[in-house]
Amino acid sequence: VSGEVLMMAFMNEASLRMTVETGYTHFWSRSRGKFWKKGETSGHVQEVREILVDCDADTLLIRVVQHGPGACHTGHRSCFYRDLSGAEKEGKVFSASEVYGKKDS
Amino acid sequence: VSGEVLMMAFMNEASLRMTVETGYTHFWSRSRGKFWKKGETSGHVQEVREILVDCDADTLLIRVVQHGPGACHTGHRSCFYRDLSGAEKEGKVFSASEVYGKKDS
Repeated sequence: VSGEVLMMAFMNEASLRMTVETGYTHFWSRSRGKFWKKGETSGHVQEVREILVDCDADTLLIRVVQHGPGACHTGHRSCFYRDLSGAEKEGKVFSASEVYGKKDS
Repeated sequence: VSGEVLMMAFMNEASLRMTVETGYTHFWSRSRGKFWKKGETSGHVQEVREILVDCDADTLLIRVVQHGPGACHTGHRSCFYRDLSGAEKEGKVFSASEVYGKKDS
């Protein structure tokens, strides 16, 4: 738990409940209309250490132990690997094509 | 720039441009329909050091030097000062009523 910001994703109430009950992060995909467990395909699951709520209670900060080399489906440790110019600030830490097979997300 | 997560707020394109041009964070309040500069009232402005974009380019991570004792309008350093049970994990670092006068936000 380094404090590094890894990713941002949407949770609904049920996915928060799944996260609390299982101890691993689960989210709700609004575009696909379904739940997803982080790391379900890649094995790069996130073990929850602490869940914090912000002042107006509409954002959660979840401190996790990130399993595997990284959180981002692109192969980077963090999803925040580029600056506004598009320049990569952090290199890849795993091969997305090997981890996900034909899927690219 | 400790890496601590301080707050989460909405930016539109124009507020991002203001942030880049001035070097201080600016946001767009959807509920009030207006721009706001973080620290405009309190003096607790945020000096931008780096702006990172996530993989699907819909979230920004802005690394800042936080001026003044804290970022949260409640008087806490970070807006993420409670856990899911409501228990305070971090105490206040300034008096919101002194800083904001009669306003409570």
